Amino acid sequence: MTSAPLLESYVAGRWFAASDEGARVADAVTGETVARVSSTGLDVPAMLDHARSVGGPALRELTFHQRAGLLKQLALKLMADKDEFYAISRRTGATDRDSAVDIDGGFGTVLSYASKAKRELPDDVTVLDGAVEPLGKRGTFAGQHIWTPLRGVAVQINAFNFPVWGFLEKLAPAFLAGVPSIVKPASQTAYLTEAVFRRIVESGLLPEGSVQLLAGSASGVLDQLGGQDLVFFTGSASTARKLRSTPSVVANSVRFSAEADSLNCAVLGPDATPDTPEFELFVKQLVTEMTVKAGQKCTAIRRALVPRELADDVVEATRAKLAEVVVGAPGAEGVRMGALASIDQRQEVLRAVKALRGVAELVTPEEVEIVGADKDRGAFLPPMLLRCDDLSASEPHDVEAFGPVSTVLPYDGVAHAVELAARGQGSLVGSIVTHDEAVAREFVLGAAHAHGRILVLDRDDAKENTGHGSPLPVLVHGGPGRAGGGEELGGIRGVLHHMQRTAVQGSPDMLTAIGGRWVTGARRTDDGVHPFRKSLAELRIGDSVTAGPRAVTLADIEHFAEFTGDTFYAHMDEAAAAANPLFGGRVAHGYLIVSWAAGLFVDPDPGPVLANYGVDNLRFLTPVKPGEELTVTLTAKQISPRGGADHGEVRWDAVVVNAEGNPVATYDVLTMVAKTWPPATTA
Amino acid sequence: MTSAPLLESYVAGRWFAASDEGARVADAVTGETVARVSSTGLDVPAMLDHARSVGGPALRELTFHQRAGLLKQLALKLMADKDEFYAISRRTGATDRDSAVDIDGGFGTVLSYASKAKRELPDDVTVLDGAVEPLGKRGTFAGQHIWTPLRGVAVQINAFNFPVWGFLEKLAPAFLAGVPSIVKPASQTAYLTEAVFRRIVESGLLPEGSVQLLAGSASGVLDQLGGQDLVFFTGSASTARKLRSTPSVVANSVRFSAEADSLNCAVLGPDATPDTPEFELFVKQLVTEMTVKAGQKCTAIRRALVPRELADDVVEATRAKLAEVVVGAPGAEGVRMGALASIDQRQEVLRAVKALRGVAELVTPEEVEIVGADKDRGAFLPPMLLRCDDLSASEPHDVEAFGPVSTVLPYDGVAHAVELAARGQGSLVGSIVTHDEAVAREFVLGAAHAHGRILVLDRDDAKENTGHGSPLPVLVHGGPGRAGGGEELGGIRGVLHHMQRTAVQGSPDMLTAIGGRWVTGARRTDDGVHPFRKSLAELRIGDSVTAGPRAVTLADIEHFAEFTGDTFYAHMDEAAAAANPLFGGRVAHGYLIVSWAAGLFVDPDPGPVLANYGVDNLRFLTPVKPGEELTVTLTAKQISPRGGADHGEVRWDAVVVNAEGNPVATYDVLTMVAKTWPPATTA
Repeated sequence: MTSAPLLESYVAGRWFAASDEGARVADAVTGETVARVSSTGLDVPAMLDHARSVGGPALRELTFHQRAGLLKQLALKLMADKDEFYAISRRTGATDRDSAVDIDGGFGTVLSYASKAKRELPDDVTVLDGAVEPLGKRGTFAGQHIWTPLRGVAVQINAFNFPVWGFLEKLAPAFLAGVPSIVKPASQTAYLTEAVFRRIVESGLLPEGSVQLLAGSASGVLDQLGGQDLVFFTGSASTARKLRSTPSVVANSVRFSAEADSLNCAVLGPDATPDTPEFELFVKQLVTEMTVKAGQKCTAIRRALVPRELADDVVEATRAKLAEVVVGAPGAEGVRMGALASIDQRQEVLRAVKALRGVAELVTPEEVEIVGADKDRGAFLPPMLLRCDDLSASEPHDVEAFGPVSTVLPYDGVAHAVELAARGQGSLVGSIVTHDEAVAREFVLGAAHAHGRILVLDRDDAKENTGHGSPLPVLVHGGPGRAGGGEELGGIRGVLHHMQRTAVQGSPDMLTAIGGRWVTGARRTDDGVHPFRKSLAELRIGDSVTAGPRAVTLADIEHFAEFTGDTFYAHMDEAAAAANPLFGGRVAHGYLIVSWAAGLFVDPDPGPVLANYGVDNLRFLTPVKPGEELTVTLTAKQISPRGGADHGEVRWDAVVVNAEGNPVATYDVLTMVAKTWPPATTA
Repeated sequence: MTSAPLLESYVAGRWFAASDEGARVADAVTGETVARVSSTGLDVPAMLDHARSVGGPALRELTFHQRAGLLKQLALKLMADKDEFYAISRRTGATDRDSAVDIDGGFGTVLSYASKAKRELPDDVTVLDGAVEPLGKRGTFAGQHIWTPLRGVAVQINAFNFPVWGFLEKLAPAFLAGVPSIVKPASQTAYLTEAVFRRIVESGLLPEGSVQLLAGSASGVLDQLGGQDLVFFTGSASTARKLRSTPSVVANSVRFSAEADSLNCAVLGPDATPDTPEFELFVKQLVTEMTVKAGQKCTAIRRALVPRELADDVVEATRAKLAEVVVGAPGAEGVRMGALASIDQRQEVLRAVKALRGVAELVTPEEVEIVGADKDRGAFLPPMLLRCDDLSASEPHDVEAFGPVSTVLPYDGVAHAVELAARGQGSLVGSIVTHDEAVAREFVLGAAHAHGRILVLDRDDAKENTGHGSPLPVLVHGGPGRAGGGEELGGIRGVLHHMQRTAVQGSPDMLTAIGGRWVTGARRTDDGVHPFRKSLAELRIGDSVTAGPRAVTLADIEHFAEFTGDTFYAHMDEAAAAANPLFGGRVAHGYLIVSWAAGLFVDPDPGPVLANYGVDNLRFLTPVKPGEELTVTLTAKQISPRGGADHGEVRWDAVVVNAEGNPVATYDVLTMVAKTWPPATTA
């Protein structure tokens, strides 16, 4: 049996083979040995040190956009080898439908992160968090929160069920944050993770030390973690408990995020009677969630909560659909559900089903024909639907059968469904299938505290919805209590989980220098050159221009009203305007003020400022009465060159004041500006 | 000695007295018994159940603004009894300067939270998080994150040094979130907490069950926590470790946030030579931090990092200032530093100082005159400054003397200061005193990963800065690693730490119904009544009006340019505009588009819409060429009645499209709208 390859770890820049034979990993379908796995002899301190002292600094040299660029290239490269990974994936018991979730889902998550980072993070190494907080009345002292990457290593401990997606969804956010990863796959399916990882190493795309692979036991790793390190764990609640209690993790306040299997529910709305599209959607979703990955998903539906009067219909319809599911070797003709990951897993599921059958009735056949494989050597199970009418029983809410198993439970009224949902004591996901907005609102707001994600499914989103069981890179994944209390993904939220938020206090000049964004009260520079005449290469934060004053007459207001059609009484009717508590008389249009402000500050000739593409946070602070004068000051607030383009964005602080110097309007003007001017000629 | 009062706990709506005599708590100045404290016989399960089943539901009945209103009333009421609390506070060893930090600081934090919540949270029970995430190309499926309160209880375990601020800074965010609190003060100073708590109960302002007091041991409380409960702890790292490892806390993923004492540093910039204002600021701050609360602050400066060449000067100047500090009974003539909280604390500090003296030299006197008190009965200490030139020594970075003790350490270059700062292995706060922006930037960005807060102090913010040692309600408080890894305060951030973030997926209609904010793609209602004619009582989310089309001519563009003065070439010069890569010809002004859009959608007569006070997220998406037609649709997006006022805010979704139906501009229009129209007449 030792002829099967020994999986290697990637440690400190080289592949490492354990000094012993390692533990055997069996093909889920045939029972043959696929690989052996061991980390005996692996130098854990060297691995951690390499991450912290080589990988971390290398990553921190790159900006968010540079890291995103590498991730994008990597995902595209891996996509090209997809067929190879699909072939290996079948040995884990996965059908091609299952592999799509794992493999395409994994690469898609990396691409999504690359794209989010380019759009939502600056091309920089720090992130500003929230608004500037004024801390003194005179404006000399303020606060700004910033995010910077932790200087440790993210130890990522993955579950067996998603050997590709599972590690990539943890790696991508860490990498973007600037934190090196140590990837620890579950032994059962580590050969697929290793295959993908080899391609990553071969690509040479990622900086040395930014990612390492630990195939085998992670024993000893957590004992060496410190206050800048992180653990992201997916797996069983009992392992999470053990790891979270590691003395060094506790003593050093190591960030620990866990995703544990939970007893997720799907609720059929009271409106979703058998004649509605929602009824069919519910049954179809339930069958899908029971059979994809042979139900081995921490997000699968374990509890189907249905209105008592519809329970028989649901059971009947689901049973009929399940009867059509062909179980067998992935790739064999017609097979829709493959094997569980191992014989041991099958045994565990059967034990759980036995416990459930103490209070629930199995309503599907005990046996099923296995197509294209030896049913005794492969880890096959039929899909198993149970029905429990004993609402006092705790098992359906507590006992998790991590396989193709769900229990139908009747409820009476939406409030009761909410209560039953919460009996799972914290779930990764729940779903409600209803076309009634009031039902959806009551369930979601009632049950959200116990869920990381809730899907509302109906005829309107039926075509485009991504399913109960699918975490998405842009939405958070995780749940309270039994689900582990962690949070991953959620777009940039998942990146920030790897960073430290720090409140910085200082003068506006200091906050501007540190955060790279001009803060109200900081120095302005007016060197006589209009800042619109400066390219990105020349423009500096704080460069400004003041223009005006220009007096607003009643004729101007009337003319603007007539031209635009905006004859709101506050501009046109003295008596009515005087009665308005906010104005006390006729006032200029807000749009007149900003239009005139542009007229004052715009430099008309062609130049590096290519376009004004938007305005943010415009507030009209003081009414402008006829006869008042307007002066505007525009200050370069944030300068963001765009990687790979010949221009970038400049955000300008704009403030319009009246003759007394009181601000009448404040806003940010957004422009696209050329990197050089005149543009570099192309040869 | 048993004549001193036995402190009571407030449990399930009544005051509870322990069944035994309890432990004696001594006056820090005189050694007399102030109180006895015990929780023997306290019914912990009843306390937890009361919070979860009475306090939580009562709080969740209220909106954020209602909760904020109660907090504000409470703080104002407590302020009125300030003198009483100051008198009690002296017995803890606190001077009136110390009490101001604790008592006024505590009430001020509650007021700050009340005000933040009114300004930054909706008058609702849930909070939307981030933007809507489109999840399908056809727009029928999207995601929205929401925050809802956890349904458990927040157990707040406080340290002895801030018996008032310490509990209020934890209670206020929990209360606002809608989560009931159990306040557990440290025994040493629990009599002051109890006194304030009695006033809270007497006020009758807070809903029953929303706050309870546990005077005495919290033993057994954490064993009964579940996945919806939270622990907020401030105290020693060793206690944090112990509590965090409680099996039920680990097993149920109980949210656990710890603030532990840390070895915070203050850095003197290389530019801050003795002839600069910064040098004086540094020394003054160091003396303040050593002596306020007799140095018993988890944010105090334990390590003073100074340029090697300035070390002698710093030591000399600090020593001179410390020599002026009068130590003795709070309230006695001239006393600037009071006693430590207890004789035990003094012993602990002396033990730590002994360890430090193994590698550092004590440069201040061993003894000091104690004014107005018996130096043997009170827990007095002199301020103690040490100097350590042995940079290999670990003690200054590891050993915390939780009293009036700091160590001066020399550094060479800013990078070295960053390295030394990080040797604290995680701090609540650091500060740098410099007038050099480059120095500040290098230090802050280099050391932020190890800090929860960094203060930059210089001549510019000298007058208004709030000091190294003062956490502020609007800034986060907490730090990584040794500092406990927790995060509190930070304005609304601290509220959200008590809530669950849930990703909700569904059709735009469903997301609108659940989140209460109109989502692009959701139903619009046009019932023929212009929505500007509807008061808040009549207006519904989705109410909309479409107006137009109106054609834009070249003459219009030229007229607008002439009227506003905005003669940017893209509007006025065909050849130049054609050369612009974004326009390819003359285009209408963005401000013309939005001005005309207003002209199209505004209803001119007096009505419930009182004013347009702003615009958010304006983006110009497609250039508008002469001859094109504009049509605008305005849709009521969010309706926010303002408590206690006769009006509220309405946010409108605005989209301007061209004749092909392509959006040329999208934005939110912000208006103030009357609650009823015509306004209710006042009698």
